[in-house]
Amino acid sequence: MSKPVLNIGLIGSGFMGKTHVFGFASAPRVFDLPYRPVLHSLADASDEAAHRAAATLGFAKATGDWRRLIEDPEIDVIDITAPNALHKEMALAAIAAGKHVYCEKPLAPRAAEAREMADAAEAAGVRTQVGFNYLCNPMLALAREMIAAGELGEIRGYRGLHAEDYMADAHGPWSFRHDPAGGGALADIGSHALATAEYLLGPITRVMGDCVTLIDRRPDGRGGMRAVQVDDVARAFLRFENGAQGSIEGNWIATGRKMQHDFEVYGTRGALAFSQERFNELHFHSCGDAPGRRGFRRIEAGPEHPPYGLFCVAPGHQLGFNDLKAIEIAGYLRAIAGEIPEPFGFRKGLRIQTLVETIQQSSARRQWLDVPAGG
Amino acid sequence: MSKPVLNIGLIGSGFMGKTHVFGFASAPRVFDLPYRPVLHSLADASDEAAHRAAATLGFAKATGDWRRLIEDPEIDVIDITAPNALHKEMALAAIAAGKHVYCEKPLAPRAAEAREMADAAEAAGVRTQVGFNYLCNPMLALAREMIAAGELGEIRGYRGLHAEDYMADAHGPWSFRHDPAGGGALADIGSHALATAEYLLGPITRVMGDCVTLIDRRPDGRGGMRAVQVDDVARAFLRFENGAQGSIEGNWIATGRKMQHDFEVYGTRGALAFSQERFNELHFHSCGDAPGRRGFRRIEAGPEHPPYGLFCVAPGHQLGFNDLKAIEIAGYLRAIAGEIPEPFGFRKGLRIQTLVETIQQSSARRQWLDVPAGG
Amino acid sequence: MSKPVLNIGLIGSGFMGKTHVFGFASAPRVFDLPYRPVLHSLADASDEAAHRAAATLGFAKATGDWRRLIEDPEIDVIDITAPNALHKEMALAAIAAGKHVYCEKPLAPRAAEAREMADAAEAAGVRTQVGFNYLCNPMLALAREMIAAGELGEIRGYRGLHAEDYMADAHGPWSFRHDPAGGGALADIGSHALATAEYLLGPITRVMGDCVTLIDRRPDGRGGMRAVQVDDVARAFLRFENGAQGSIEGNWIATGRKMQHDFEVYGTRGALAFSQERFNELHFHSCGDAPGRRGFRRIEAGPEHPPYGLFCVAPGHQLGFNDLKAIEIAGYLRAIAGEIPEPFGFRKGLRIQTLVETIQQSSARRQWLDVPAGG
Amino acid sequence: MSKPVLNIGLIGSGFMGKTHVFGFASAPRVFDLPYRPVLHSLADASDEAAHRAAATLGFAKATGDWRRLIEDPEIDVIDITAPNALHKEMALAAIAAGKHVYCEKPLAPRAAEAREMADAAEAAGVRTQVGFNYLCNPMLALAREMIAAGELGEIRGYRGLHAEDYMADAHGPWSFRHDPAGGGALADIGSHALATAEYLLGPITRVMGDCVTLIDRRPDGRGGMRAVQVDDVARAFLRFENGAQGSIEGNWIATGRKMQHDFEVYGTRGALAFSQERFNELHFHSCGDAPGRRGFRRIEAGPEHPPYGLFCVAPGHQLGFNDLKAIEIAGYLRAIAGEIPEPFGFRKGLRIQTLVETIQQSSARRQWLDVPAGG
Repeated sequence: MSKPVLNIGLIGSGFMGKTHVFGFASAPRVFDLPYRPVLHSLADASDEAAHRAAATLGFAKATGDWRRLIEDPEIDVIDITAPNALHKEMALAAIAAGKHVYCEKPLAPRAAEAREMADAAEAAGVRTQVGFNYLCNPMLALAREMIAAGELGEIRGYRGLHAEDYMADAHGPWSFRHDPAGGGALADIGSHALATAEYLLGPITRVMGDCVTLIDRRPDGRGGMRAVQVDDVARAFLRFENGAQGSIEGNWIATGRKMQHDFEVYGTRGALAFSQERFNELHFHSCGDAPGRRGFRRIEAGPEHPPYGLFCVAPGHQLGFNDLKAIEIAGYLRAIAGEIPEPFGFRKGLRIQTLVETIQQSSARRQWLDVPAGG
Repeated sequence: MSKPVLNIGLIGSGFMGKTHVFGFASAPRVFDLPYRPVLHSLADASDEAAHRAAATLGFAKATGDWRRLIEDPEIDVIDITAPNALHKEMALAAIAAGKHVYCEKPLAPRAAEAREMADAAEAAGVRTQVGFNYLCNPMLALAREMIAAGELGEIRGYRGLHAEDYMADAHGPWSFRHDPAGGGALADIGSHALATAEYLLGPITRVMGDCVTLIDRRPDGRGGMRAVQVDDVARAFLRFENGAQGSIEGNWIATGRKMQHDFEVYGTRGALAFSQERFNELHFHSCGDAPGRRGFRRIEAGPEHPPYGLFCVAPGHQLGFNDLKAIEIAGYLRAIAGEIPEPFGFRKGLRIQTLVETIQQSSARRQWLDVPAGG
Repeated sequence: MSKPVLNIGLIGSGFMGKTHVFGFASAPRVFDLPYRPVLHSLADASDEAAHRAAATLGFAKATGDWRRLIEDPEIDVIDITAPNALHKEMALAAIAAGKHVYCEKPLAPRAAEAREMADAAEAAGVRTQVGFNYLCNPMLALAREMIAAGELGEIRGYRGLHAEDYMADAHGPWSFRHDPAGGGALADIGSHALATAEYLLGPITRVMGDCVTLIDRRPDGRGGMRAVQVDDVARAFLRFENGAQGSIEGNWIATGRKMQHDFEVYGTRGALAFSQERFNELHFHSCGDAPGRRGFRRIEAGPEHPPYGLFCVAPGHQLGFNDLKAIEIAGYLRAIAGEIPEPFGFRKGLRIQTLVETIQQSSARRQWLDVPAGG
Repeated sequence: MSKPVLNIGLIGSGFMGKTHVFGFASAPRVFDLPYRPVLHSLADASDEAAHRAAATLGFAKATGDWRRLIEDPEIDVIDITAPNALHKEMALAAIAAGKHVYCEKPLAPRAAEAREMADAAEAAGVRTQVGFNYLCNPMLALAREMIAAGELGEIRGYRGLHAEDYMADAHGPWSFRHDPAGGGALADIGSHALATAEYLLGPITRVMGDCVTLIDRRPDGRGGMRAVQVDDVARAFLRFENGAQGSIEGNWIATGRKMQHDFEVYGTRGALAFSQERFNELHFHSCGDAPGRRGFRRIEAGPEHPPYGLFCVAPGHQLGFNDLKAIEIAGYLRAIAGEIPEPFGFRKGLRIQTLVETIQQSSARRQWLDVPAGG
């Protein structure tokens, strides 16, 4: 009732912008948060686009110039869902104005830029969050907890994957994602596989990359073709600090796959298998089960797996993709209030870019590379 | 922006009350609705409980007396998530006051009561909605569309199910759900199986029921035991008006099952299989596929399956249980505005009670019974 | 090496005849059996057909007259895979000649005939076997063992099914299976669902049947149509002697289904789920698992599940349909040697016919019926 | 009947020896083969062991000295299922004696030895077969046929795997498989992943390997420990001659996995997914399906997928592991008769060893390597 207001200024109203809005709408109902977030202002590519989206999405104010949001003293949080190439400029401006910054992934096209952003945020003392909402799944929290508690014994192996097919059509047009500054499959979705791997097992210390371009030119939208330099598929062999080893793959031309963000973790006493295709389930094999009675058991998400119970008191009813964003937002607001550390701040966003870049370099040089420690 | 406000008065803040609140929060962001719903007032068992819940859930006003909501001229919609036994009194009062009424299922313990409610609502010209949100799943809409379009050929057979295990523990206490007026497995969840069956195939005309009580007494909470008279498992053979035949089962002691709301539909040219355990998928077998290449294909929910795309532009990301409630609310608000017929009004709620009661009677009399036409 | 020979005389060389031959070929290699079975003679519809099949299948002798097998003093076992209508005559003749008799299911079209056969066999003291090889699956033995050992607690509920689509095409010709003496879906495959139900839970005591004909005439092969009087789909509500209740369905027009012989068993402390579509797996939910770690676990067949290990020492490699027949044959040969009781003799074959007939009568009379005890 | 006899001399009666015997027993019943194979002689580690096994398995003669089989002019085929280290000596002796040779995989520990064996067999003009029976699965034949026919369009990507857990226990004793000459995970089961990859997509031209030892010492059976030098997990990035790229993994410490021989193939117009855990199914995604109706369809093995129909005329009944060996044997016997080329002769066995060795070398040198063309 009397909770302090937190005014949100959102930049961008596309796929991710909407997801953020849905998250801000539901998070304060589901969670007992330290703030009451208010959809204060929306900035988009033009005044007109901004006003139209603001009406639908429920923002009080709208503008075609994102700098207005930075300048507005009422706004507490700048939420960036604009194209990747603009993240840095926007975030640095917001940080300079003392705003907290919530930025969709990837934090920046290059690790050096991401580092600049993380350093600036820490120097300014603002709270940051990068959008890695797959990590907000209660079943991933369960997996991490089980690993940390030793329920799988000592971890030996990992196999991670994030494969979709949204770039499988060779006739699909060239876009900013095909620009080396924009990404490629590794930066765009392989990054999720890397984030999950480190979320579960801790730091990756060494990689051998294999980045492959299969569709090397795409229609430029003006009747011609434009060269594509980024990877369509990227793989890496991995070594973890904890002694485990494994691999990941990022793949945006995996025909038929819509959300194959999968992993398997093998320990000395158990194993886990997960697929984002059925992300309300975690499959657990325990060597502690009686002989002749062992097998991967399909654990369905329920109230025993926080914060599932806040969404629904009954098990098996299932969370949706947008609910994961609400969980991310709840964590971020708590971090702003100082209740918890930043769940996935700019330093961690930088970490992912560091991993991506090291894998890209390893692939280009065709040799194993150490991953620099930290972000 | 300038959309008319629709003030909501919610009665009850338990499991379903919260789900309604989450739905009202997200529906107007996801959909372009004719109204801006406002969480106006919350009524609960006591003033204190109501104020506490109102603060968390975002209602402006709160009261321990639900009649205040009925009397409040500002409130447009009375939303009832109170215990089943109170539905009728609350709904009739709201209707008498000219309010639109949104009521959780079951509409009433007895068909006669449900009929009274439906008649009153229609006489008063108010718009009603009963909460049957599993029907709001885009994959069920797809199934219905495929059946209606003849993609399965002529429909011959149906097998439906709603099994959970929340009453499997014989030491679980006696509750209002164990009172004949409160329900049993058929009324509580078998009703979902019936709703889905008619949603997909149209009217059921004849039934043979089998209602079984396996746990015939439960702790009364005061050290004694209290007799249970309702069914733990209920089954029915079915005949449909369209010539198809089939069966359903409702079961609340299905150990290990959390959300086994499943169905299979068999037609002359294809078949569908669905499980609410993985409700973002529909499995489709087409006899039109080439020989040697046939099989049930796993269709994942995506933007081709409205209104999925309003929640997320990318396929395979998945809706959650609460999103289904948002879809239900969106439909109801459109019905209030006269844009569409009531998606599942009191008349349909009555229909479900009629089916439930006919199956119960058939079981008691051990004979096939015709189902009265209509609600 | 010096094992006594057991001479087999096979009648019929169709689908099931071949399966028997494959079973006789592999059983003595896989198992340490009391006899060395020899494919002695084959009888088929004509001399020519018999000789051709005998050459392929490895029989020393062949004949177009099955009575020659009965008369041949060298033959120890008459193995009947001829059309159902002939089972009785052949079996009685063989029994009268003192032969052991192995007969494919159904034992006979009517329970009265099956009883005559069982009585004759017992009076003559010969050993019999009816082909119900789904019951020979190590995973079904595991399920039965788990139930008997109380791993699921007290059994409350059962849901069984055998659905295929081999009669789904209404243009498929009339055959002996469409004759009331030949069967219908309940007799043909619903019988498997019944056999599995009693194998796992013990005697069914009471039933309510629902037998439905959906394709009521079929091409007679001479340009006309012929009426079909048997059921395409049959269901039954069940009561078991042990207090459990449940249902089964037999369905031969289940479009897209090839081998949906499924069951679920619910007990007070656990549950099992099985599908013949993946018959090397048994899914087990244990209430003994830790909270938050429960789920159906997929147990893969392995050496812990006898006699799997005789086929393959490594788990997860999987048995095939024909291996189940070899297991059946091994059990039968041991019964002939007196090492074990008959695994599924004529008395049990009669039992299945009794169940089938009681369900058919119940459906016709539209009332619950007691199932006569025993065979 | 009057088919020429083919006398088999089997060396070894362990896991694989038995599987061969089962295959020889059933193959001539299932298939119309050019020969009648006879289990002539069995050689094992000792006379006693050999006689015992021969009695059970049905061999006429037995010996503790495998050279007797080579010398026996009656024997046509020497079938080697002895430890890997002996393959070469046995095979060369058999070839020198003009015998056809059937040898379990791996053909030899080193490619150089395998080459010697392949060269000798070709020079002698005898027919050879290496046991790679996973390739004999009708669903793999279907996959290859679909790829070759262009049903997936142009092939872009491949992900292969063979993971089991039979070496996951660090307390399991040192065995010949832990000797560099014996194998490691890549040679032992990664070889299957490689065989399947080339079976489906054709030659692999370039690899980058990652072979990892996690359990570096094991009990030596005499109270001490012995160093393990072979890989527990091995991965490789792959390039194919047809322009596709991908990866494979071999893993024998994948806790909980019994038979995870999986692959996914991505083409421009479709995709396939397969798991040996359910090897009677192939999952096919076709871009030719209507929008909103696409998904991986689960094709169940049936008579449309030769030679399934020879085992069983009804679909969905499923083949078992031993049936795959029968298919392998049938192909080999036809090759001996000159009816078809050798399905998987020594030259192909050498090819697999070449791939294994190149990956091992690539891993040791930490660099990409070209795979020598051919065997």
